[in-house]
Formats: sequence, structure tokens, C-alpha cells
Amino acid sequence: MTKLTQVVELDASAASRADATEPVRSALRSLRGAGPKKLVFPKGRYHFWSDRATEEYLFVSNNDPSLKALAFPLIGFDDLEIDGQGSEFIFHGFITPFAISASHDIRLRNFSIDWERTFHNEALIMDSKPAPKDGLASIDLGISKQYPYRVEHEQLRFTGYHDHEPLAPGHALSFDPVRREPSWQAHDDWAVKQWHHAVEIDPGIVRFTAKFSQPPKAGNVATFSNAGRYCPAIVLTGSQDIELSDIAIHHCGGMGVIAQLTRNIRLTRVKVTPPPGSDRVISATADATHVVNCAGQIEFDECRFENQLDDPGNFHGIYARVSRVTSPSTVEVELVHGQQVGIEITHPGDEIEFVGNKNLLTYATAKVAAFTRINKRFFEVEIEGNLPPETAKGDVIASLTWVSNVTVRNSRVGNNRARGFLISTAGKVLIENNVFRSPGAAILIAGDANYWFESGKVRDITVRGNTFDNCLYSVWGRAVIDIVPEIEPKNREGALYHQNIRIENNKFILADARVMNAHCVDGLVFKNNTIEWGSDYPLGPGKEAFHVEACANVEIEGDTLPPRD
Amino acid sequence: MTKLTQVVELDASAASRADATEPVRSALRSLRGAGPKKLVFPKGRYHFWSDRATEEYLFVSNNDPSLKALAFPLIGFDDLEIDGQGSEFIFHGFITPFAISASHDIRLRNFSIDWERTFHNEALIMDSKPAPKDGLASIDLGISKQYPYRVEHEQLRFTGYHDHEPLAPGHALSFDPVRREPSWQAHDDWAVKQWHHAVEIDPGIVRFTAKFSQPPKAGNVATFSNAGRYCPAIVLTGSQDIELSDIAIHHCGGMGVIAQLTRNIRLTRVKVTPPPGSDRVISATADATHVVNCAGQIEFDECRFENQLDDPGNFHGIYARVSRVTSPSTVEVELVHGQQVGIEITHPGDEIEFVGNKNLLTYATAKVAAFTRINKRFFEVEIEGNLPPETAKGDVIASLTWVSNVTVRNSRVGNNRARGFLISTAGKVLIENNVFRSPGAAILIAGDANYWFESGKVRDITVRGNTFDNCLYSVWGRAVIDIVPEIEPKNREGALYHQNIRIENNKFILADARVMNAHCVDGLVFKNNTIEWGSDYPLGPGKEAFHVEACANVEIEGDTLPPRD
Repeated sequence: MTKLTQVVELDASAASRADATEPVRSALRSLRGAGPKKLVFPKGRYHFWSDRATEEYLFVSNNDPSLKALAFPLIGFDDLEIDGQGSEFIFHGFITPFAISASHDIRLRNFSIDWERTFHNEALIMDSKPAPKDGLASIDLGISKQYPYRVEHEQLRFTGYHDHEPLAPGHALSFDPVRREPSWQAHDDWAVKQWHHAVEIDPGIVRFTAKFSQPPKAGNVATFSNAGRYCPAIVLTGSQDIELSDIAIHHCGGMGVIAQLTRNIRLTRVKVTPPPGSDRVISATADATHVVNCAGQIEFDECRFENQLDDPGNFHGIYARVSRVTSPSTVEVELVHGQQVGIEITHPGDEIEFVGNKNLLTYATAKVAAFTRINKRFFEVEIEGNLPPETAKGDVIASLTWVSNVTVRNSRVGNNRARGFLISTAGKVLIENNVFRSPGAAILIAGDANYWFESGKVRDITVRGNTFDNCLYSVWGRAVIDIVPEIEPKNREGALYHQNIRIENNKFILADARVMNAHCVDGLVFKNNTIEWGSDYPLGPGKEAFHVEACANVEIEGDTLPPRD
Repeated sequence: MTKLTQVVELDASAASRADATEPVRSALRSLRGAGPKKLVFPKGRYHFWSDRATEEYLFVSNNDPSLKALAFPLIGFDDLEIDGQGSEFIFHGFITPFAISASHDIRLRNFSIDWERTFHNEALIMDSKPAPKDGLASIDLGISKQYPYRVEHEQLRFTGYHDHEPLAPGHALSFDPVRREPSWQAHDDWAVKQWHHAVEIDPGIVRFTAKFSQPPKAGNVATFSNAGRYCPAIVLTGSQDIELSDIAIHHCGGMGVIAQLTRNIRLTRVKVTPPPGSDRVISATADATHVVNCAGQIEFDECRFENQLDDPGNFHGIYARVSRVTSPSTVEVELVHGQQVGIEITHPGDEIEFVGNKNLLTYATAKVAAFTRINKRFFEVEIEGNLPPETAKGDVIASLTWVSNVTVRNSRVGNNRARGFLISTAGKVLIENNVFRSPGAAILIAGDANYWFESGKVRDITVRGNTFDNCLYSVWGRAVIDIVPEIEPKNREGALYHQNIRIENNKFILADARVMNAHCVDGLVFKNNTIEWGSDYPLGPGKEAFHVEACANVEIEGDTLPPRD
């Protein structure tokens, strides 16, 4: 039997300055029901305002929970394709473009996402002087009309957010406008968020005094992230079989693609990058992609994640901390990190592990019998049988069911704040044939049960055929390949948390001596890689090429660096 | 047939420093089902933390919407009494003590509500000097340990909120610690919220420089409201037949009792007041009571509302603004004011009125056929029959069904920021035998379709047997009795918005010459009142005792003031 596809083509007149939010809602409403469904946009530029958007209160991991205005509320859909046919979707105000929730077989393709007024702000540093007082610098900011502002009470406030009060500058980070990446050894300047002094010395020029970690350099671009992570571009939650292809996310107020509790996700030719022809050095204001507590197969191919204000991709679970034992078979657990709250990390029938928070080692596994939400922070987990006798307050649990395989191929990531891919999933992981231009570590394999609560152990990671191009030219990491589960040195011996990590046939072009740093790994192979010195930057502060500690079954080949001119 | 009452007595051990939130939730869970139910507290001091509280996203009119932690989530209950037997309920963090929603026949009695760490802050002004720069003053604040703080980056931050980041000082208001009321002619200092400079000169003493509307006076208390209106004490929404008696609300982060869409409410011996023996000059951080879009009979008897940071009581509806006409029988309307969003002001079957936003006059009434929520701001209203032909964007609609009768008797209100009772309800209103000590207008009868969107016309108000004790010694109002619907002077002629207001047999002790100010009233009687001069304050700036404009059927007796010594 042939399945007929329902097709709705949006009225081309929606491609105007008018608000397309309602035409889209009507079109989606008409596409309910069984069978394949398709929403097609005549190629054009569509505008979406937050005003009349459907609202849902969403907890989005590693972003900020809120009552979110949704332009495409794809909730409870199946077998739906949205084809933008090359259209540009322009957003206005605090609105989340796509939320895919409780849905399956959803395909989004062929469009771009941008905001007319970005959440973040950029300004050219026209002049920079130490201020009379120690530790302060006074910089003249040239602020173009695309970042409207005002100065009042000697405070700089960014304006024009459509549905939000003026915002103070958030944390500052300096970018090199020629290389279009964070400037060499740039730091985050969080103190700017606490205090500054501003005077408008001419229209569009503001003398801005604040505490910077290093003297700002005239000619660089000062970027200010000031609006939280309320408006990620594409949210996937509690869904299955999602394909995103040929999508360019030029901006969003949070992460580009954030997936949680979702099975099987494929991204093909998805870009997070500033719009072509723009002088903006920032794309998304947080990570390009983030995959949390997902399952099945996660595949990225031919993607490009650059200039966002955090990593290109993270793959991890969530450790929930045992807050008390409430019965012989029940623990109460807490989601400690404020951007993980509300995420139901496990379900009845799932397998979970019990993990010591000091050595990160699993001391028991169990099957979940019942899972009860108390509120966004606290949950009760009842297991089949009795709790392991070691169970103690402060230990953590994590799902062993919500674990994904990850393949990232043929992609380019870099020019962003922070690092490359952060991988903490026990599934099969292949990172192949990519180019990294990360200011920090390019590959970070961590795991932490005390601060970030991002699980978990890895079991099978292959990193091969990639080029690491002048990575680690700034501060976010201790080596290009950085394997640093958060286990205190005194607890590391015998704590073989991670397993089977192979770094093979890659090309390392170094901006810093530190190639690999690892502890607590059983099965670490580094071979057939080529290493050369890069020339883009002065040599970074690192001394030791390979630092390996408390590991077993380590094979490192070619562990001496070539001489540097 | 005798109805048996289920009674649950809370375990007395809950009266400890332990979190009573869960014992209360368990007790409430055991009290579900038909018939009368009673939860009794052995007299004691109970503590409630936000941590494990039940959460609901609540839109609470004239407060701030949020995902609220609820200590007593009384949702979908009927015939329930909660008797504190004189207990003290102490709250910690961002938590709302009581939310009564979709419930009927609920009685709360015999307890007090306070926070260990208040949302607002108070500090003694130990010294005050003009700062070198124009318009600024530099004051030395003595901050007691009950308001923990720190100074960093030359900014004062209040701390200790349990579940919240440190908060900057919000708007400032000066209080007289001897009279325990706002100081003479005190203004709100909003500029403090925008900019200040702070240095700790000794532990507990902070030199604080900011822009004040008048030079702060040494010996007064500077109060800072800095935490929004997220935690009102008692929220009533979508409920019926609610009785609150013998309750003392010593503090809350928002309004004391806020009722919306609720029918029949009785408050007997409810107090909003700082705790006995405390030096705090602030009780609730917003209005003591607020009744919005309610119906039936609202009765306050023997209440005491004092020292809160806004009015003792408001009674009004909501004007929703016509944003567009979407069919011959349908308008889309908007809730414009940010603290009215999410309130469903009408329902199918209700009667509504269409009102011109310039003259506030009703040009049509209609029956609601359908009411559809688009989101928190926008709603579609379909009426039976066609829309009135005059219907225009910018006009407003209001409910004629959700209108209440109000009786306030034997109560004392005052020592608060702002005014006395604000009355904008078309029901029968009696304000009898109360004492007012309001720094602004004691009785304000307004109505506004362009800024606050608080409806509506009054039809029958009697104010008798009250004492107005030195009211209007500050800036919030134009007369002790202030009848000022927001109709521009050019539109007032013939716009007889309000009707039948009688001010009889009251005693006015004046701190300012302005006794009554009124426009746009048909039927205004002022008689058998006694007027004398007060001696508590210097004479205020007002000149004219009675100002009446664009009114009809006015009877004023005794409109000359006695000579002032």
C-alpha cells in the first residue's frame, strides 16, 4: 500500500515582514493525523515574533528553563517533514524556533535561522588604556547600530530586544576580527558582569571601564554575552528518529541543537555559523550542539560548528546525586546543576548504575521499578530488589539505558569560545575526518559527579583521520586530547574510569606543546599520528607533550615533538 | 445525616527545625476525597523550605508569574479546614506558603507566616552627606545581621536567600523608625536600582552612594525592595467560598493575600504586619490584599494591614485591549500589563462590556460564546451575535460577570508605602468603621484602559464612619478621597464613568488640605463628615480642599476647612 503524503505549502505571502508564527501554527494544525506529512515553505524570508507564539514551560538541559515562546511547536507529531526550500527564518525577541517533543520521525531541512537583533553584543575596541585604579582598563568601544544601546546612570545597557528590558553587558570575551576567533590566550572576563563604568563620548562610542583579566587590545572585538540561554534554536526532547539537514543556525540565545531523552538523531550539513557577509564574530551564544541522556545512534556528517560562545558538541548523561535513602529499595536523588533540573533521567524498566562520587567507579547496577518526580530538583527512584549496601548520600546514579553511540564525520569545528567535542557516553564513538580549530582542548573526555554532574564513563572511542589545527591557543584545556575525569589525585590509583580510547592517524598542528593529557583510563592508544608545529601563534605555555597518570594498557607512539624553529 | 469530618493532626515532631513541607504534603494527600476535612497543627513553630516543595507554574495577577514552590498546594480540594492553633510558619527561600486553586469551601485559620531571611532589606541611615557629584548622596548604612550582605566590585549585594543568587538593592524608600511609617514626603528612589557605589567601612557599615530624590536623613531607615513579587503569602485562584481568619502575615515576597477569579472570600482578623517585637518596618513587599476579577461577596472584618510596601487593598478587574478584529463576531484581545498576563478574565456564558479607551464609556455589552487562549498575552473572544460596529483596536473589554461586592469593616490600615483602598468594582461596596493612616490617598477610585488596565467603573460605594488619620503626608495621591479615572481632561465632559459614591459620617484629620478630588462621577455625596487639622506633620503642599470636575449630581456639605493654628 502506498502511503499518501499530506502536503501543506505555506502561503507565499507569509514571506513578508508580517509575523509568520500564526500561519505556521495553522499549517501545523492542518497536518495532524496519521501518515506522512509535509510542510513546505516557498523560498523566502519569513519573520517570527514571540508575541503570539505558542508557549510551553520547558526544562532544557544545559540551557535555562522558562516558559518558552515556540515558533514551531512540534509536540506529539509523527512522520513530519518541514522543508524550508532555502528560506531564511528571522526571529524577534525571546522565542525558541523549534521544539520537537514527544514526537518521532521528524525531518527538518533547507532553511536558516537568525535573529534581527542578536541576544549577544559585539563592539570594536578602538582604544585601550589602563585605568587609574589597579586592575581596571578603560576601553573605547565602537558599537554599530546592529547592537542598539544606551548609557544611563553611567551604565551601559543594550536595548532593542523587542520583548525584554535593556540588558547589562554579561561576561566579556575578546575576539580577533581578522582570524575571526578568540584572541590568543583570551580569558572570559566575568568581572564585567559585576561592575563597570560607562560614558558615551560620541554617538556609537562608549568609554567602558571594567576589570579585565588581561589588557584588552585595540583592534580586537569585545563580545558580551548577556541574555542567558533561554532561546536555543532547536530543542529535541523525549523524541525519536530526528533528522536535521542543510540547516544554517546563524544565531540563537542558547544552544544551536540541544537534544535530551531522544533516540536516533542525524545531523547532515548542519551549520552553526554567523551569517554570510556579516562582520559578526559570534554565532550561537552557547554550544552548537549538546546531546544529553540520549540513546540509539547520533550521527553528524559534513557539519560546521564555528564561532559559537561554547563548545561545538557535548555528548553526556546526567549524574543525579543521592540525597537520602528513603526505603530499603528507594533513594531520593537530586539534580544538582541548575541547568539540569527538570530532566527525568530515567524511567521504570531502565537500568541504572550506582557510582561513588570520589572515584567515579560503579559499585552496582539495578533496574528501575518506579520513578517519581517531587519537583524539578528531587526525584524518588525505586529499584527492583534492595539498594546496594554501599549506597551513601553524595554518591550518584546515572542511566545505563540512555546511552548513545556517536559518529561525527567530515565536519569542521572551531573559532568558538572553549573546546571541541566533549565525549562522555559509554556507546561506540567515532570521531573521523574532521578539522578542529579549537582554542582549548579539541577532544575532552571528562565525567564529574561533584560539580557539573555530567556523566559518564566511555567504553569505546576512536578518534582518527582528523586534523587538529593550532588548537589550545587559549585557556580552555590542558592538552589537545584531554582526558580528565574529575577524580582527585589521591583517589586516582586503580580508578580506571574510562576505557578503550584510540587516537590514530590524525594530524596535529601544534600551538602549544601539550598533545595529550590523561588519567584513569584502561586502554589508551595514541599511534600513527603526525605532529608538526603550527605558526599561527606564539608558542603556548605548555611544556609536556604527553602526560599520562593512573592509566593501564597504554600505547603511545611518537611521543617526542619535532623541533620548533 | 451527620457528616463525619476526617481530621489529620500533623505529627508534633514536625514542629522543629526540620522541613515540614513533606509532612504537610503527606497529610494533605491523606485528606483527599469527599466530605469535610481538617488538618490540625499542634501549636508550634514549623519551618518550610523551598527545596522539596511541590511546584506549579502560576500566573498571579499583580505579582510575578513563575514556577512556584508551594508549601501548601491546595489544588482541587473541597471542604478543607487548616487550623494552625496559633502556630508560627517560618519560610525559607523562594516559596509561596499557600496556593488555593480550583477549590471550594476552604478555611485557613490560626497561624502566622514569616520568613527567616526576608526578601527585602532594611538599614539604619547612620550618616548622610551630599556626594561630590550633583544629585548624589553618600549615606552610611548600618546593616544588622538579619540582612546579610557583601560588598564586591564596589557593589552592595544582599545574600542569604537560601535558593537564590545575591540580589542588588532594588528601589529604596525611607521610613521613620519612630512613627514606623514612610518618612514625611518620602519618594520611591528608583535610581538606586540602576546605579550605586558601595564601600564597607566597617563590618556592618556600608558607605552607599546613589541618586536620591531627596537627601536621606540620618536616623531614618532605608528600605530596599529587591526580589520581585514571586512569593505572595496566600494565593486564591479559580476557587470559591474561602475563609481566612486569625492569620498574621509578617512577611512575604509579594502580596499578602491575592485573589483572582474567585467567588466569595472572607477575611476575619487577618493581619499583615511585621512580627511583634521586631524592629522591621516592612511587612509584605507588596500590597497586603488584592482582589482581581473576583465575584460574589468579599468581606474583610477586623483586619490590620500595615507596613507593607504597597496598598492595604485593591479591588479591580482587568481591561483586555482589543488588538484586532478577527471575524464579525470575534476579537483578539491582549493582556497588556506584564503582571496581568495569563489571567483568563472571562469564560463562555459570561457577560462582557466593550469600552472606549479614551472616555472609558461602555458602548456595548455581549455574551461570550467562546474564549481561546493563544498564549499568556493574547486571547480570542467570540461573542454571541456580531461585534458592535464601533469596535476598534485600542478599545478594551472587561468582564461584567466577574464583579464583586466588597465590605471592609472595623479594620486599621496604614504605615505602608502608597495608598489605602483602591476600589474599582461595580458591585456594592461598603467601607465602614475603619482607621486609615495612609501616606497617600486613603480611598482611590480610578480605572484605566491605557497603562495599568485595571477596570472598572463603580456603581455603589459607601464610605462611612471611618477615621482618616493624617493621610496624604506623602506623595501617592491628589487628595484623601481621590476619584481619578484615567480620562484625559479633554475627554472628561459627559464621561460619567463612576456612579454613586457617598462619603458620610467620617472623621478627617488632615496633614494636607486636599480632602477630595474627583472627576467623571455621576452622584457624588460628601456629607456629615468632621474635618480637623492633624498635628503630626508640617502642612503638606496641597491648597484646594475639594476639587470636583466633570461630575453630575454632586452634593458636598462642609467644604471649607477649619482654620489651622
